[in-house]
Amino acid sequence: MSNAIPTPSVPAPDILRCAYMEIVVTDLAKSRAFYVDLLGLHISHEDETQIYLRSFEEFIHHNLVLTLGPIAAVKAFSYRVRSNADVDAAEAYYKELGCRTERRTEGFVRGIGDSVRVEDPLGFPYEFFFETTHVERLHQRYDIYSPGELVRLDHFNQVTPDVPRGRKYLEDLGFRVTEDIQDEAGVTYAAWMQRKGTVHDTALTGGNGPRMHHVAFSTHEKHNIIQICDKMGALRMSDRIERGPGRHGVSNAFYLYILDPDDHRIEIYTQDYYTGDPDNPVITWDVHDNQRRDWWGNPVVPSWYTEASLVLDLDGNPQPVIERTDSSEMAVTVGADGFSYTRPEDKDGEASGFKLGNQL
Amino acid sequence: MSNAIPTPSVPAPDILRCAYMEIVVTDLAKSRAFYVDLLGLHISHEDETQIYLRSFEEFIHHNLVLTLGPIAAVKAFSYRVRSNADVDAAEAYYKELGCRTERRTEGFVRGIGDSVRVEDPLGFPYEFFFETTHVERLHQRYDIYSPGELVRLDHFNQVTPDVPRGRKYLEDLGFRVTEDIQDEAGVTYAAWMQRKGTVHDTALTGGNGPRMHHVAFSTHEKHNIIQICDKMGALRMSDRIERGPGRHGVSNAFYLYILDPDDHRIEIYTQDYYTGDPDNPVITWDVHDNQRRDWWGNPVVPSWYTEASLVLDLDGNPQPVIERTDSSEMAVTVGADGFSYTRPEDKDGEASGFKLGNQL
Amino acid sequence: MSNAIPTPSVPAPDILRCAYMEIVVTDLAKSRAFYVDLLGLHISHEDETQIYLRSFEEFIHHNLVLTLGPIAAVKAFSYRVRSNADVDAAEAYYKELGCRTERRTEGFVRGIGDSVRVEDPLGFPYEFFFETTHVERLHQRYDIYSPGELVRLDHFNQVTPDVPRGRKYLEDLGFRVTEDIQDEAGVTYAAWMQRKGTVHDTALTGGNGPRMHHVAFSTHEKHNIIQICDKMGALRMSDRIERGPGRHGVSNAFYLYILDPDDHRIEIYTQDYYTGDPDNPVITWDVHDNQRRDWWGNPVVPSWYTEASLVLDLDGNPQPVIERTDSSEMAVTVGADGFSYTRPEDKDGEASGFKLGNQL
Amino acid sequence: MSNAIPTPSVPAPDILRCAYMEIVVTDLAKSRAFYVDLLGLHISHEDETQIYLRSFEEFIHHNLVLTLGPIAAVKAFSYRVRSNADVDAAEAYYKELGCRTERRTEGFVRGIGDSVRVEDPLGFPYEFFFETTHVERLHQRYDIYSPGELVRLDHFNQVTPDVPRGRKYLEDLGFRVTEDIQDEAGVTYAAWMQRKGTVHDTALTGGNGPRMHHVAFSTHEKHNIIQICDKMGALRMSDRIERGPGRHGVSNAFYLYILDPDDHRIEIYTQDYYTGDPDNPVITWDVHDNQRRDWWGNPVVPSWYTEASLVLDLDGNPQPVIERTDSSEMAVTVGADGFSYTRPEDKDGEASGFKLGNQL
Repeated sequence: MSNAIPTPSVPAPDILRCAYMEIVVTDLAKSRAFYVDLLGLHISHEDETQIYLRSFEEFIHHNLVLTLGPIAAVKAFSYRVRSNADVDAAEAYYKELGCRTERRTEGFVRGIGDSVRVEDPLGFPYEFFFETTHVERLHQRYDIYSPGELVRLDHFNQVTPDVPRGRKYLEDLGFRVTEDIQDEAGVTYAAWMQRKGTVHDTALTGGNGPRMHHVAFSTHEKHNIIQICDKMGALRMSDRIERGPGRHGVSNAFYLYILDPDDHRIEIYTQDYYTGDPDNPVITWDVHDNQRRDWWGNPVVPSWYTEASLVLDLDGNPQPVIERTDSSEMAVTVGADGFSYTRPEDKDGEASGFKLGNQL
Repeated sequence: MSNAIPTPSVPAPDILRCAYMEIVVTDLAKSRAFYVDLLGLHISHEDETQIYLRSFEEFIHHNLVLTLGPIAAVKAFSYRVRSNADVDAAEAYYKELGCRTERRTEGFVRGIGDSVRVEDPLGFPYEFFFETTHVERLHQRYDIYSPGELVRLDHFNQVTPDVPRGRKYLEDLGFRVTEDIQDEAGVTYAAWMQRKGTVHDTALTGGNGPRMHHVAFSTHEKHNIIQICDKMGALRMSDRIERGPGRHGVSNAFYLYILDPDDHRIEIYTQDYYTGDPDNPVITWDVHDNQRRDWWGNPVVPSWYTEASLVLDLDGNPQPVIERTDSSEMAVTVGADGFSYTRPEDKDGEASGFKLGNQL
Repeated sequence: MSNAIPTPSVPAPDILRCAYMEIVVTDLAKSRAFYVDLLGLHISHEDETQIYLRSFEEFIHHNLVLTLGPIAAVKAFSYRVRSNADVDAAEAYYKELGCRTERRTEGFVRGIGDSVRVEDPLGFPYEFFFETTHVERLHQRYDIYSPGELVRLDHFNQVTPDVPRGRKYLEDLGFRVTEDIQDEAGVTYAAWMQRKGTVHDTALTGGNGPRMHHVAFSTHEKHNIIQICDKMGALRMSDRIERGPGRHGVSNAFYLYILDPDDHRIEIYTQDYYTGDPDNPVITWDVHDNQRRDWWGNPVVPSWYTEASLVLDLDGNPQPVIERTDSSEMAVTVGADGFSYTRPEDKDGEASGFKLGNQL
Repeated sequence: MSNAIPTPSVPAPDILRCAYMEIVVTDLAKSRAFYVDLLGLHISHEDETQIYLRSFEEFIHHNLVLTLGPIAAVKAFSYRVRSNADVDAAEAYYKELGCRTERRTEGFVRGIGDSVRVEDPLGFPYEFFFETTHVERLHQRYDIYSPGELVRLDHFNQVTPDVPRGRKYLEDLGFRVTEDIQDEAGVTYAAWMQRKGTVHDTALTGGNGPRMHHVAFSTHEKHNIIQICDKMGALRMSDRIERGPGRHGVSNAFYLYILDPDDHRIEIYTQDYYTGDPDNPVITWDVHDNQRRDWWGNPVVPSWYTEASLVLDLDGNPQPVIERTDSSEMAVTVGADGFSYTRPEDKDGEASGFKLGNQL
């Protein structure tokens, strides 16, 4: 890691949690149908170019901003910090890192006040803010509760070519690793990092990047996630279910991955565990353990490893995607022979690999 | 269908429901670990060669008999009839069909009285009985309720080369079709048939047969099924999860398929619908509809189409398996090009077929 | 029982199941808000004087008819029979019993064909029909599934002064008892009776009658019932939750009782057990067992014992209510001293009776 | 509040979360049956005088210590702090408050290192520690997961005569109020206070104190709580279910209260909401709102207001209980006329008050 990101001398901002993502969508009506009609997120504001959405239990202005634009991409991964002083701290921190920053006391989007956006060392557009308009917390509005209700924003997931490099940078920023995936040589393929006491506020997945892998919302119970699948089936949208539902090995959460009209990936997630103690035990998974990604051994569909959303710089142009040159998790677990998952039909020695297939 | 099975002149027995299956297992200890320790079925009796098991809400002696033997196979698909007179009726019915029958007033297994076993026209070992020892119905024994509790036997599923032929025979026997899968030419690939007012007591799946595709137990709720997966993950048995969990298109039930130590397939199933009215609408699915087998569009693992258990004749010898010569459901939906399921990554025209793969 | 109802010489009709109830409501808009907006029943037809409603999995025209009228009451308890011949059989059966009957080949309500209504020996308006308009079965319409979705009509419950008399009459009619409540002297306080293989299609509760105690709809899972409570809380309608949620001792179902704008009582119910075998074991509960009505020992609110809906004769006039002269279940378990339920705080000998209270 | 507790000049310790409670029980075998056999807590250590228990997802040594003794009482409310320096800070903090403190570098119980116990200004035995033995986190041990599994310690609840006085003290200690109950005069009847980002780590309930009202464990889903009720019914322990299950107004959690063999009250709790932001909106409930304690309007059984466990001083003697002299919540909402809850049967003007009763 000749390329290592230095640790700034100034203190890192005190990050509370991942707070919202701003994504560019190419057809606002289609995206509204997906996020509002299908998923039931609640509208805090909408106009001809933007829709502001929040989850059932949220009191800050929004957890997701859909902004109409020409190229589907992510405009901001936004974190809430403890105070306005922490916005100052964030600005100073990234300036010392030599990153481009932009400060707007009126905020970049509605409902958010004084904030700073940066092009971070990994190429991601990060935002930090404290000020926000409080909106009605809907947590007891069971009269508008949907059977697949999304109750909280849970986390982001970012694709980056060099996970150890990114991990060191995020640890400096105050994130604590809860789980990771490594091989026998100690290479890290993915890492989960938290601020709010859950398994993660963001995670790094090794691959061509910078790209956004997914943004995750949580439900109360597992049946809420099943209902989302059932509803997508009823709407004949089953081809937008990419992976799951299943139980993650990493995080222990029950999950589902679906794709929005621009192929932005949304995870629906429930029931991970408390991680807020400073000595919370880190769990390291073996990249060859086929229960690490799915506890039930169901193979991961390759698109899940290869596809992700572009991210934008502060001018709104897509960041160039750098290829991961060393091995990726997919290559390690799948690519060597294309038949990494043995299934029952293989027991007599025929490597048919049906649940995953002969790939690429 | 030159080969059609004639309709007997004598009345069919009045069948109440599928009642139990007797299966031959090759290692009783391993099977006990699977059915008792893993799945939590309740023991009505066990000795050195047999284990009798029942579900949580059952009051007849058993729903499953594990019999030690040299070849894993099914010894009996057993139906309960309304009275002893119906056992007589069954015997007369099959005699007129020219089938081999055997009557035992003391029963073929413990806990069952006067019964008849037959080699039916499709080659399956069917049993009919009314008399049974009543055992404690455990339905309020929440002190021994497990998180993946199996509460009822739900249905059988049989593989046969000629589904229309088998369907006609079972309709004569008093079964009513609730759903089926057909192609545009009217070829039937599978049919679901009931007596007890659920979607099925048995089903016919087209394929090489006679073989037993699966036997299904039901749970109260969906989370019970998820727990079975989670437990299999914890026991590092995920390779015994063959398919699912998922939502069936046909039957609308939430399902899971797992494999016992002898590769007998067990379905865990919950929440189909009432079908007891004589004019219950039959639902016909298109064999090309990829939501017919899984409402969420997840592809069916090929082993599910190709693998099944042998069945025994009345002497205990395996029935020869006859190949399905016309098209099978798997061939129709998968075999032509090996890429029947288009996935999100295919949207640009590349038929990568990742969720299923390029097969065979 | 000098007053016993004779067994007719003609055969009873073959009843499939309880099919729908017609109730008179005094404000159609208020009732619509309750049954459609709150409970999410699906409208098969509505006009200025009637609303026809069905549950999620139903294919016959309706399960509930709301008819505008001056007095809140029940106009019909309607059962579906196997064929039109069974409508004839029902008519002959009640004529022999000396009951007033009315036959309408076009049906009494929309969506129902040839039917007979009778004033039965207990004073209830019973209907029998086979012909019905099939409507869309919504069972896979997860796009309109509500979090408290009512999926089936489950049963009726009738209040009558002489339960043994009513039980004998209904057994003659073909119902089979699954559970009952008795005291040590063999007096029966309530009885549950079925046709469709669940714990009941109707039940008799001892009390002043003839009156309608409740009509019950089932949900898929327990959380669906909890959601109905939560929604009523959000709508500040908690005073319309009369009893529950809880687990019944009798039937083993998870339950909730709520009251409609006219005080018609609706039960929401899930997860009883299969009873379709002719030798299904009857469970008799001791009237002094405080887990018989609620498995968790929560006391039954007295209104649940005392309040019920009037029923109409064939002219639309309320049937006179006859007082139960012998002991009622409430009197036996509560009335003697008003402190039948001992609670933890009572263990030192102070009979404070708080969970039920010092009554009347 | 002439009696106000001063704010120390030294900084408060950085409290992570409520960590465990040590309770004195009078019959260890009976308590083991309750906490291990009934509730399924996991044993970290046991000997002839103590049992150490933890929840499914815990990695510190224990969440509950049962210590055999002559008088049922609470020996310690123990909080985990961020570091050993915070144990020093806690000691200094309470010394400045003039409280009796005791420091043990080897810990007061097994599995806990350097710790300080204090008799706090409200009379409660508080403990602060950081060092602990890590034990196996069982969170993926679905092979030993019970259907009513308790997955985390959630919170304590303390009874104190002067809630505003206690609230000020706990706010000084670093707790933040999330919800409270007040009347129109601004009198506070109860307050919920947190450190770990849930609705509470502890709460103050107005009443005779210092006493321990309850300790709460959480489950994953609502059905897990229902199962605990069902199991207690099956074990004929329904008289140990004190209140619920229900939905809280305050906290929005689904809840159940049960009583251990010494009448220590245990809450089972699930699904409150995130409160970790510094400007998390405080919710104030009206003491006259009958949905504040139960969202469904079910009345609170009076024992829940009046009964609680003694707490011990550092010598092991029970702290004297001081009566609440001003109005209590129970008196305000119930006591005036004994019929505060109008129920459906009251609609005609008869105040029968059955669901709560005419009290005291």
